[in-house]
Amino acid sequence: MLKAALRRGVSKPSCLSSIRFSSSVAAQYFPNEPIKPQFVSETIPGPKSQALNNELGEVFDNRATYFVADYVNSLGNYISDVDGNKLLDVYCQIASIPLGYNNPALIEAAKSDDMLYAIIDRPALACFPSSNYKQILQEGILAAAPPGMTKVWTALSGSDANETAYKAAFMYQHAHKRGSLDFTHEELTSVMNNKAPGASDMVILSFDKGFHGRLFGSLSTTRSKAIHKLDIPAFPWPKAPFPALKYPLEEFKQENHAEEVKCLEEFERIIVEDYKPHSIAAIIVEPVQSEGGDNHATSFFFQGLRDITLKHEILMIVDEVQTGVGASGKFWAHEHWNLTTPPDMVSFSKKFQAAGFYFSNPELQPNQPYRQFNTWCGDPSKAIIARAIYQEVSKHGLVEKTAQVGDYLYDGLKQLVNKYSSKVSNLRGENYGTFIAWDCYDADVRNKVLLESRKRGVNIGGCGDVSIRLRPTLTFERKHAEILLQVLEDVFRVV
Amino acid sequence: MLKAALRRGVSKPSCLSSIRFSSSVAAQYFPNEPIKPQFVSETIPGPKSQALNNELGEVFDNRATYFVADYVNSLGNYISDVDGNKLLDVYCQIASIPLGYNNPALIEAAKSDDMLYAIIDRPALACFPSSNYKQILQEGILAAAPPGMTKVWTALSGSDANETAYKAAFMYQHAHKRGSLDFTHEELTSVMNNKAPGASDMVILSFDKGFHGRLFGSLSTTRSKAIHKLDIPAFPWPKAPFPALKYPLEEFKQENHAEEVKCLEEFERIIVEDYKPHSIAAIIVEPVQSEGGDNHATSFFFQGLRDITLKHEILMIVDEVQTGVGASGKFWAHEHWNLTTPPDMVSFSKKFQAAGFYFSNPELQPNQPYRQFNTWCGDPSKAIIARAIYQEVSKHGLVEKTAQVGDYLYDGLKQLVNKYSSKVSNLRGENYGTFIAWDCYDADVRNKVLLESRKRGVNIGGCGDVSIRLRPTLTFERKHAEILLQVLEDVFRVV
Repeated sequence: MLKAALRRGVSKPSCLSSIRFSSSVAAQYFPNEPIKPQFVSETIPGPKSQALNNELGEVFDNRATYFVADYVNSLGNYISDVDGNKLLDVYCQIASIPLGYNNPALIEAAKSDDMLYAIIDRPALACFPSSNYKQILQEGILAAAPPGMTKVWTALSGSDANETAYKAAFMYQHAHKRGSLDFTHEELTSVMNNKAPGASDMVILSFDKGFHGRLFGSLSTTRSKAIHKLDIPAFPWPKAPFPALKYPLEEFKQENHAEEVKCLEEFERIIVEDYKPHSIAAIIVEPVQSEGGDNHATSFFFQGLRDITLKHEILMIVDEVQTGVGASGKFWAHEHWNLTTPPDMVSFSKKFQAAGFYFSNPELQPNQPYRQFNTWCGDPSKAIIARAIYQEVSKHGLVEKTAQVGDYLYDGLKQLVNKYSSKVSNLRGENYGTFIAWDCYDADVRNKVLLESRKRGVNIGGCGDVSIRLRPTLTFERKHAEILLQVLEDVFRVV
Repeated sequence: MLKAALRRGVSKPSCLSSIRFSSSVAAQYFPNEPIKPQFVSETIPGPKSQALNNELGEVFDNRATYFVADYVNSLGNYISDVDGNKLLDVYCQIASIPLGYNNPALIEAAKSDDMLYAIIDRPALACFPSSNYKQILQEGILAAAPPGMTKVWTALSGSDANETAYKAAFMYQHAHKRGSLDFTHEELTSVMNNKAPGASDMVILSFDKGFHGRLFGSLSTTRSKAIHKLDIPAFPWPKAPFPALKYPLEEFKQENHAEEVKCLEEFERIIVEDYKPHSIAAIIVEPVQSEGGDNHATSFFFQGLRDITLKHEILMIVDEVQTGVGASGKFWAHEHWNLTTPPDMVSFSKKFQAAGFYFSNPELQPNQPYRQFNTWCGDPSKAIIARAIYQEVSKHGLVEKTAQVGDYLYDGLKQLVNKYSSKVSNLRGENYGTFIAWDCYDADVRNKVLLESRKRGVNIGGCGDVSIRLRPTLTFERKHAEILLQVLEDVFRVV
């Protein structure tokens, strides 16, 4: 009962808070966690990192490497590199690593018999499911499902989750159009030539600056950066504008509301004027456009999207690949919206540490078997890790704790952003856990902030053109926030 | 030296064969492997299987389930279901499971420290690679690479491997066209609207009845069955005919040659007449069209494809997702062709037990970082299992052994097919390891053969419209083949 309430971000009696959540979970998990960043090499990447990375480059495209990591010696919120440097990690494998490096609960899950058999006898889950698969899902991923979502599809990555969600949307919409009729001869033959009517001419609508993955379907909905898309064929799918809010929000309340109204109007105009009825299968939207620059919108905007999609019988897919599993201060970021009707599908991945999934209601299951299907249909080893993550998050109230430390961190950053307002601005993520970001004066300053932070022992990531995003673990606490704030002040001073 | 020779399928002195390969590897791995199928329930799926599957269906699309498996009690070539039946498995999780269930070498790999850290600290491999990633690749996957292929891209499934290979092909071809020029303003802006010239208008050509996956790009190249494709948008990419050979091959030598010549001519006609030069980025072809019905072609056909692709500067991707890793009697099925020039990319997955990969030469690496990129860029836990698989295959000469048992099995099946020629025909896979298939009189007979085999304790799979395919482990030996042949004879008699 309490667990469920916490998961949904419902407030609880403060007495309980002090009893259950006052101690440091990080200290319980990681009694030997470093108390601050540790330096061994003069630069990061250091000489060993550079040498190993050069060797790896002979066989693997590694030109985006920050440094070569030593996972054996990483612990909690600190990632170690092969030179022995230990960095406070607030990037966390691009917004993953929910419970910290080498978390004892994950070690236990990894050493379990369930895990052993999942690894050595990998099943084709939709043909020969393992006897414990339902239990694994139910004790883990499904226990975390938002209201109304009783089905889960298990995929292998965020992209894969989004693409299979798109497929479910297309099949659902066409089944509705078709009613009780069978596939026609023309559909059955044209599809083998990749042509309509058998191949769908419906579309998925996404939002400007959104990111939904890099496979062909998901990439057609990704609108983050040209370099992600150049030279790859894309479906002629539409995009709608996403609000560009001004900060501080309290100062631009009216202007921002007008911006969101304008975006909603343009969204509905595209649906009504650019497309025939029932030709947009679904929209996909992130609660915060993460790769695209940590762009937020208000609940008003998202409720507007939900209302318009319902009105025009378009499905609404919420992409929680980056926002899901607690970092926003609620288990699912879309819980911040208090929608009057739940979304149709929710995709997620990263903070359940790999694999990808989507939730849906039972209606979204295709009307025949073998339509949503592939050899693996997921990976039980990943569902087992997700179960352990969910159970720890739940047991230790890590969503609530993340909301609390996020508030502390936001307040500290607010002071810094005010103090160094010529260099950094547009602080985002108030009351949004540790899912915090800000802009830098330009890309050059941004890149310097990333570099100087790493030099001072903080591993941090950028997004968009000039933004910096924080993506720490759910065991990131006040003591870590204090170090982060100190380092950022030092960095803001010198950049 | 010997290992390398074996891997390439080069013949070796017969004395060595008898010394090194005479003993039963299955008996070494699995001293307690069942000696024959074991029945507990009257039907398969039995009552426990049905009950558990009904429960699973509440949360997961499981309408394609054969039976619910008990992996803890599966061993070697025998899969156990939850009712306690033990079936000789010649389907093996849709052509996976290389070393048998609960193989001790995989148990060791799964319990290794390398595996532990790969699971609990899953890295974003292209940003923070682990210190041992090159070693894992080099001792495993890359040690198995065909000549000239020194680079590997690590993906998460066969579909993912093919799609990232397509992306590499598109980027390579456009880089060639563009020469030393930068992206134009028009390219940079048009791509954000999913339009040319920034979005590619080049195509991937695939073959009629080919199967290359079910995500949006790979599904556009899949031509196996309408149900795989219906209602899903597809790129307008072309297909060419794949030879429909007649059997027995020795009887239809001339006719089959004419068929392959005709297909090659049509292939080149499509390239020359239907497309402008340099508008087909790549072709993708399976050594045996597996999902599409186990359709073979001769080396002459594949050499023809290679010659024509080279002539027109089109890349050649060989999809070894189902054929790779030994089942064909060579490590890579395309080694049967003795091509004068290696293919440009080779994708693979299943028998390396999950994940997906492609090999390429260094030229196929995109000209900038972050173009072939995603959060995970593979999964070290899968590369660790692949390493263990490669090392066992190599140590025990399992490719060579599979070639031998395949010959025995083929001979036995040849007799059966002759004896029951009104029901089964078109035996395929001579000198092709255990990668053997045949046709049944019609779909009804085929489905009966599958059902009756399962009743008699053999788990077996179909493909295409009327075909049955054998996909046993690489530890499938003469003793297992004898049981299989006996069961098939019983089944052919009654269907």
